[in-house]
Amino acid sequence: MIKIAVDGMGGDYAPQLVVEGAVQAANSFHDVEIVITGKEDAIKRELYRHKVPGGKISICHASEVVEMSDSPVQAVRKKKDSSLSVAIQLLKQKEVDAVVTAGNTGAAVAASTLNLGLLPGIKRPGIAIAIPTLHGISVAIDVGANIDPTAEHLLQYAIMAEIYARYLLKKKKPSIGLLNIGEEESKGTEALQEAYKLIRDSGLNFVGNIEGRDFFTGKCDCIVCDGFSGNVVLKMTESILEMMIKLITKEIQKDFLARIGALLCKPAFESIRRETNYEEAGGAPLLGVDGVVIIGHGISSAKAICNAIRVARESVVEHVNEHIIEGISSRIGNHANLPSKTTPIPKVNP
Amino acid sequence: MIKIAVDGMGGDYAPQLVVEGAVQAANSFHDVEIVITGKEDAIKRELYRHKVPGGKISICHASEVVEMSDSPVQAVRKKKDSSLSVAIQLLKQKEVDAVVTAGNTGAAVAASTLNLGLLPGIKRPGIAIAIPTLHGISVAIDVGANIDPTAEHLLQYAIMAEIYARYLLKKKKPSIGLLNIGEEESKGTEALQEAYKLIRDSGLNFVGNIEGRDFFTGKCDCIVCDGFSGNVVLKMTESILEMMIKLITKEIQKDFLARIGALLCKPAFESIRRETNYEEAGGAPLLGVDGVVIIGHGISSAKAICNAIRVARESVVEHVNEHIIEGISSRIGNHANLPSKTTPIPKVNP
Repeated sequence: MIKIAVDGMGGDYAPQLVVEGAVQAANSFHDVEIVITGKEDAIKRELYRHKVPGGKISICHASEVVEMSDSPVQAVRKKKDSSLSVAIQLLKQKEVDAVVTAGNTGAAVAASTLNLGLLPGIKRPGIAIAIPTLHGISVAIDVGANIDPTAEHLLQYAIMAEIYARYLLKKKKPSIGLLNIGEEESKGTEALQEAYKLIRDSGLNFVGNIEGRDFFTGKCDCIVCDGFSGNVVLKMTESILEMMIKLITKEIQKDFLARIGALLCKPAFESIRRETNYEEAGGAPLLGVDGVVIIGHGISSAKAICNAIRVARESVVEHVNEHIIEGISSRIGNHANLPSKTTPIPKVNP
Repeated sequence: MIKIAVDGMGGDYAPQLVVEGAVQAANSFHDVEIVITGKEDAIKRELYRHKVPGGKISICHASEVVEMSDSPVQAVRKKKDSSLSVAIQLLKQKEVDAVVTAGNTGAAVAASTLNLGLLPGIKRPGIAIAIPTLHGISVAIDVGANIDPTAEHLLQYAIMAEIYARYLLKKKKPSIGLLNIGEEESKGTEALQEAYKLIRDSGLNFVGNIEGRDFFTGKCDCIVCDGFSGNVVLKMTESILEMMIKLITKEIQKDFLARIGALLCKPAFESIRRETNYEEAGGAPLLGVDGVVIIGHGISSAKAICNAIRVARESVVEHVNEHIIEGISSRIGNHANLPSKTTPIPKVNP
């Protein structure tokens, strides 16, 4: 059995949709057991609304709630009995195999990093997210944990993204691109210029710098980016489809024939909506911490929570963290012989 | 007469489409005279294809061409007789009132900054671009000139964007947003946190931090951002519409009724394409340099070149640079009394 702790109070629609999603997951995955952390009364009340398969969901009471507006480090330090902290503690004590939270992202990153620590050799964790593209699913890392990464951090993100693409997206020889403002090696900040060299020399399947226009074309399987741009792009794309639909609706209302046309096109539009829907892709793993932690969007629906639990389950089944430890160790082994201007990367003792 | 130098060799389709766009502009704006810089033979050959209104277009020969792949500073230092450098020299010597180029953006920024210098008080120039939103046109600055701006640079971008919105977009009390990864004042890098305070205290109509999801909703008239994220977002949006159209086409091909529907919707789609088309918005002013310089996209069509010339003309007619000098002087005057952790901003002697 794979045990997954779900932060019952995290997210804009918690505990209602979180519990609903947990129930969906309990019904979908025969080998998953779920512990929901949070206010027992509130969670029980939600559970009563659903048909829960026997023994697959339990509650672990937590008296406090991390609000979306809380400062991450403060929340972790002061709210020791929050649903988030309790879930992370269960993982630390190996009572569960993974944590899923749709709460305050900054607090989830801080709580995981401070309590679980990082995998051997890893300098900074990164949030990886699946991106629907014209040629299947890609992964982008980092999208918000590290807004000012060094070249070394970016190299490590490349290594972790490659593992994600290989084991979770089932890509054979995942290609890596570095998000920059031009294709030439000389573009971007010093950190990016140095990261270009490090990734090129790492033995990864590096396609070079990619630009904003390549984000959704599927030009590469893994997009390595700083957490600031990654976050901006991610939030922008979440809204752009809604904007397109509003524009199309507005234009179509002006014209009778177009209104009929739109009715006929509806199934095609629905299909595109599904293909580009982040809910389908599920939550975003916080890669690099010593434990499986999946972060969901604050506005996660029940389906999104269920999918985040699926990603947590797959990360455990596929031993993603063990592969990251191996990848960091072997890539850095290759790399340590090459001259580099960055801080030397310490060898990992596996 | 307003005299505008157009870089005849700059852009992926130069000189052909540049000359075509210049001819369109000469025919559209009765008060504009155009000097095309570049290889005389090649430009003459293109001009012969068109009906040119008498005396409105002349050629200024330049023997060299800045390539898209040239390093910006090298291009400026080594290619003194490039079509770009010659155009900037004409502006410096006040033989023309403005320059339009669709060539190497970095080289255009370097050539302008090095040869024309900056307006009094301005620390770094920024590229401003018009953005189509759900509520009309907004302006974003910077989208690529300054990838690592300080808080002071961002404040100056806010002041310049406000002038752009007021005089070129004709907004009465332009609102300003700061692109960040969260709405709270405490989000983002130190430079962004400090910029938040500076802009808030500047007397501008500041709406606070905005996120990626607000980029196209028209939440504010002016989006202030670092040149890295701005560039990534800009290039991404240029491609996203194309991607949507490809997705829609693919889905629609699957279904006979949807194919008929798509035909009926075509005028609505075309109208959206027009509304979200960067060509309509024209070129992007390089604000902060001592002269009107408008940068067009490398893949500019003739229409985009003509629109960039329109923006150059309007910038001259509306005295945008004089208003920027005034704005910087008066806002910094207000601001200098407030305590701040950033480098003190020197008072401007107008």
